[in-house]
Amino acid sequence: MRLLFVGFGTVAQGLSELLIEKKEQLEEDHDFSWTVTGIVDMLKGSAHNPDGLDLEKILAIAAEGRSISDYPDGGCDWDALEMISKADADVMLEVTYTDIKTGQPATDHIRAALERGMSVTTTNKGPLALFSNELAELAAANDVDFLCEGTVMAGTPLLNLLRETLAGSEISEMQGILNGTTNFILTQMEEGMDYEAALEQAQELGYAEAVPDADVLGWDALAKVTILANIVFGASLAPDDTPCTGITEITPAQIAAAAADGKRYKLIGRVWRDGDEVRASVAPQLMDLDHPLAGVGGATNAMTITTDTLGDVTIVGPGAGRRETGFALLIDLIAIAAGSPS
Amino acid sequence: MRLLFVGFGTVAQGLSELLIEKKEQLEEDHDFSWTVTGIVDMLKGSAHNPDGLDLEKILAIAAEGRSISDYPDGGCDWDALEMISKADADVMLEVTYTDIKTGQPATDHIRAALERGMSVTTTNKGPLALFSNELAELAAANDVDFLCEGTVMAGTPLLNLLRETLAGSEISEMQGILNGTTNFILTQMEEGMDYEAALEQAQELGYAEAVPDADVLGWDALAKVTILANIVFGASLAPDDTPCTGITEITPAQIAAAAADGKRYKLIGRVWRDGDEVRASVAPQLMDLDHPLAGVGGATNAMTITTDTLGDVTIVGPGAGRRETGFALLIDLIAIAAGSPS
Repeated sequence: MRLLFVGFGTVAQGLSELLIEKKEQLEEDHDFSWTVTGIVDMLKGSAHNPDGLDLEKILAIAAEGRSISDYPDGGCDWDALEMISKADADVMLEVTYTDIKTGQPATDHIRAALERGMSVTTTNKGPLALFSNELAELAAANDVDFLCEGTVMAGTPLLNLLRETLAGSEISEMQGILNGTTNFILTQMEEGMDYEAALEQAQELGYAEAVPDADVLGWDALAKVTILANIVFGASLAPDDTPCTGITEITPAQIAAAAADGKRYKLIGRVWRDGDEVRASVAPQLMDLDHPLAGVGGATNAMTITTDTLGDVTIVGPGAGRRETGFALLIDLIAIAAGSPS
Repeated sequence: MRLLFVGFGTVAQGLSELLIEKKEQLEEDHDFSWTVTGIVDMLKGSAHNPDGLDLEKILAIAAEGRSISDYPDGGCDWDALEMISKADADVMLEVTYTDIKTGQPATDHIRAALERGMSVTTTNKGPLALFSNELAELAAANDVDFLCEGTVMAGTPLLNLLRETLAGSEISEMQGILNGTTNFILTQMEEGMDYEAALEQAQELGYAEAVPDADVLGWDALAKVTILANIVFGASLAPDDTPCTGITEITPAQIAAAAADGKRYKLIGRVWRDGDEVRASVAPQLMDLDHPLAGVGGATNAMTITTDTLGDVTIVGPGAGRRETGFALLIDLIAIAAGSPS
């Protein structure tokens, strides 16, 4: 399978390391072999070679802060759209930065790749939160795959679990902790910190951005909930359709009162069927301590899925991380290679 | 797909209800259509018809306590081995009673079916705990599938998750709560009951047998741990190879002391790699309250899987139940129909 990376930041490099480390195992166990034929990154440069790029060398170039365009056997100055229109590739990995307001430039990249007959896997929440149905239809029209395991809960295989292993079940509701940063802040506040100190610690640890709005106001969880509503429940929701409250108004006094009452605040993203409608919400909720989501502390994510066959099933795992999100792309590549997602 | 039920108790009837309820959805969404051509049960009687049995009528006969042998279009007096040797079927569902000491008569049923070229799915822990490697080889030699999702955590799709959605990961350790009865008893003891009262309540609710040894001495968890060691880690362990301690020696004083220390006892089944060896254990363990397994109360099961790609991933769900265990068989049937387990 010939791979094209559009974006070559942390997640792309995490996947690259996994691909190199597991090359033989992937061939033996999953009949999956790969060649990277193109890489394009706005800041890091571009390279293309139909015979394959040496991924280890490119990782070394990136680690040294040199330009990928200087790679000797195929360095070039193509931008993303030129690369997508010219590259010899079967699958595009869309791993540029996320813009959850416009979905760009990732959405244009995905459209161009699908129209050229490439399958696509992405960790980019913008295109999925805004245009998932349009892009799924475009993929179907071009008879290619379009997967996005890494958009929700990183490589914790939530979407794959729903598609493959809960096949045959009807899902009536999903509720979960979809943002690790806010869960970390709430966990710290339970241990006595105030909001500002907990946020500062999250920023020091690299969990929160300098401008933390996307996390603490709930927008990141909102994007993920919208993705789940559309791709799992078949809805056509836009992010603006869903009420969204973050954690900035929760006071230490409220957290102490909850603890005294045997409860705990969690920022819960929720999607559920209400008759023929699909509804969603993002808001802090008081959870009983014996609920599986209540025990999920720190930056971990979790999702409880309510089914007609099993009642509640909960999956708990990482929601971010270089290697953890890179693995999401690998799950999708294995599924595409196996022909299973169709 | 032509199905043969060997055993027609609770789990078989749970699956039958799901098959009837979801018939159209399974055809549309999973290209899976089914006919039941044979049913044999030591106590409830037998029927065979290559054109298909009316499963709703047979469920009604069983519900009324009449003999399936009186079914008009194919009632017969064949025993299990005669049925397996004569039935027109593609897949045998082995759902007779579990004997974890001998694995019989289920193991003979599975051998006979595999040798006739039928695929097999089972919820029966006996054959898997004792003969999983031999049976897997026999299935491979006959080019058929042999699946057992329901032997561990009922229909909570643990084995399918490991096989399909964590493909590409290396598993170094699994530890979990694999027996709902003992977890229920421990949960009740934390709320102040003594062991005898908690056991009695578990018996009243149908969680524990009149002779509760298989649960409370850890044998049920031991069978499941052995299955995981052999089919997930490729070991060749017999149940006797693994140290096994149940919950009968845990005192209310110990439970109170653990709570005062911010911990909680759980009966933990564990399998891990130790160099080239695979080791396993079943024993009560003190868990920190912030461990994902600590919050799992009542009769629920859970498993934490340690991977090289994601760190820890935990799945929480039912470990028993008519419909929940029946669904495990349905997961396997869908996988067999899709040709995916090979």
